[in-house]
Amino acid sequence: MVICSGFTQALAIVCQVLAEQGATTMAVETYGHQHHRAVIAGNGLKVTPVPVDRHGAIVAHLDGADSALLTPAHQFPVGVPLSAERRTAAVRWAANSGATIIEDDYDGEFRYDSHAVGALQALAPDQVVYAGTASKSLAPGLRLAWLVLPAHLVDRVAAAKRLADFQTGVLDQLTLAEFIQSGQYDRHIRKSRLAYRHRRDRLVDAIQRRVPGVAVTGIAAGLHAVLELRPDQEENRVVGLASSRGLALEGLSAYRAEPDTHPPALVVGYGTPPAHAYTTALARLCAVLDDST
Amino acid sequence: MVICSGFTQALAIVCQVLAEQGATTMAVETYGHQHHRAVIAGNGLKVTPVPVDRHGAIVAHLDGADSALLTPAHQFPVGVPLSAERRTAAVRWAANSGATIIEDDYDGEFRYDSHAVGALQALAPDQVVYAGTASKSLAPGLRLAWLVLPAHLVDRVAAAKRLADFQTGVLDQLTLAEFIQSGQYDRHIRKSRLAYRHRRDRLVDAIQRRVPGVAVTGIAAGLHAVLELRPDQEENRVVGLASSRGLALEGLSAYRAEPDTHPPALVVGYGTPPAHAYTTALARLCAVLDDST
Repeated sequence: MVICSGFTQALAIVCQVLAEQGATTMAVETYGHQHHRAVIAGNGLKVTPVPVDRHGAIVAHLDGADSALLTPAHQFPVGVPLSAERRTAAVRWAANSGATIIEDDYDGEFRYDSHAVGALQALAPDQVVYAGTASKSLAPGLRLAWLVLPAHLVDRVAAAKRLADFQTGVLDQLTLAEFIQSGQYDRHIRKSRLAYRHRRDRLVDAIQRRVPGVAVTGIAAGLHAVLELRPDQEENRVVGLASSRGLALEGLSAYRAEPDTHPPALVVGYGTPPAHAYTTALARLCAVLDDST
Repeated sequence: MVICSGFTQALAIVCQVLAEQGATTMAVETYGHQHHRAVIAGNGLKVTPVPVDRHGAIVAHLDGADSALLTPAHQFPVGVPLSAERRTAAVRWAANSGATIIEDDYDGEFRYDSHAVGALQALAPDQVVYAGTASKSLAPGLRLAWLVLPAHLVDRVAAAKRLADFQTGVLDQLTLAEFIQSGQYDRHIRKSRLAYRHRRDRLVDAIQRRVPGVAVTGIAAGLHAVLELRPDQEENRVVGLASSRGLALEGLSAYRAEPDTHPPALVVGYGTPPAHAYTTALARLCAVLDDST
């Protein structure tokens, strides 16, 4: 296990090591963080797109890449899990082609409706780099992430980490270790999971009652939902109206690697508003959706 | 000002930006941390040596490099400040050749015997990157450093920092900010300076009384001294004997960029032992020096 200063550094360092070992391309889901694509490109790998459908990344599109960044448990931001068939196909692709997959398990602690989705890394420990983070379970400002690595990458990644910033801050690491060992971290996760699930249920309920034309998807896990707008609602217009009423939302297109067409949709982070403001935020969101036809 | 996760990251990011802008070489004092040379080389710059004498780096040797890493206030590890003439010559070299100097002010808070040595950066703010750190004043495990940059580098360095790890942990940053604003940081520095000065004085006194053939140098500032051994004392032998008696010391040659000959010397970090163990550590050091002829 290598501790990194957040997922950004974890991704940067693994890309750097893969590039040093001869990798030239990293396949990335067509919906995701632009920042991650910039990190990959900044470390010398060409970003190639993998389309996403309701079963997750279409892994047949991995062919030709020599590495991949995937969000198998809860595709970000579309919100679907990678199907069992696709998971098998992805690790088969990696094993056959000698490719490395980075599994970005950014919100694995928060699964609500079904059994936990196992890590892809467990299916192919020699091909998959598992990346976990405290950004969702504790705070993004904490900058703590951890990598479970194929054995042949451990020394190289540790060396690259040392050259990047010597080590991650020890106060945060020791505090988290104490938090985990005392059992308080698990209690915090269970409590947070209930709270976020409650927020999600309230979001779904409010949208269904007050803006029934809008579908809420991607909600089996995590801290965000995708609202599929009515065909007559333009993303940019809804985002602008929301902004004018104090709501920071983004359209699904903000996460798109390349131009394509998709039905209009919003990405809504329901973990963000403080507890006392959640009712108001929900009411405003419904009003914005209702007014933006 | 760009906040970085320790000096290692600050150096890595500045090297990366300089290399992107066409720099190919970085001149480095022949005595210094091997780790820093590895960071520079790992970011694509060739390391070229600058010899050090009792006036600091011999800046005439900067010619031919397009960037430089210097420790002007307190050469590490030799311990001398860069002389006024050399300071002027260094910034003139940078201005005339368009080079960038990184000023590693690793222990600037701890100056004992003379007026504070001004920052090189103040002489040439468009040529010099000033790097400060909390590693000596608070703790190396904290991973907090700060860069004061020439205006033309600010945006590029901030962008590189964002791609490296998005941001430095905010809890540490907010805690330090509060510590500074409350005046407690200044009190801590003043108190630490007195304590370290007292340790230094005790070290000098013990060596003079008990091992008079050994000279103590580089002591006007910082947390380490250089002990110039007698000609018949071999560095490796003294370091080995010290280690067998529970003292972790290093020979000056451990900090040498390239083979050369220098009189045998030890680098002694007198800030390291806990307060209750300092008397014993000093006694053991003197005994080691006395026994290692």
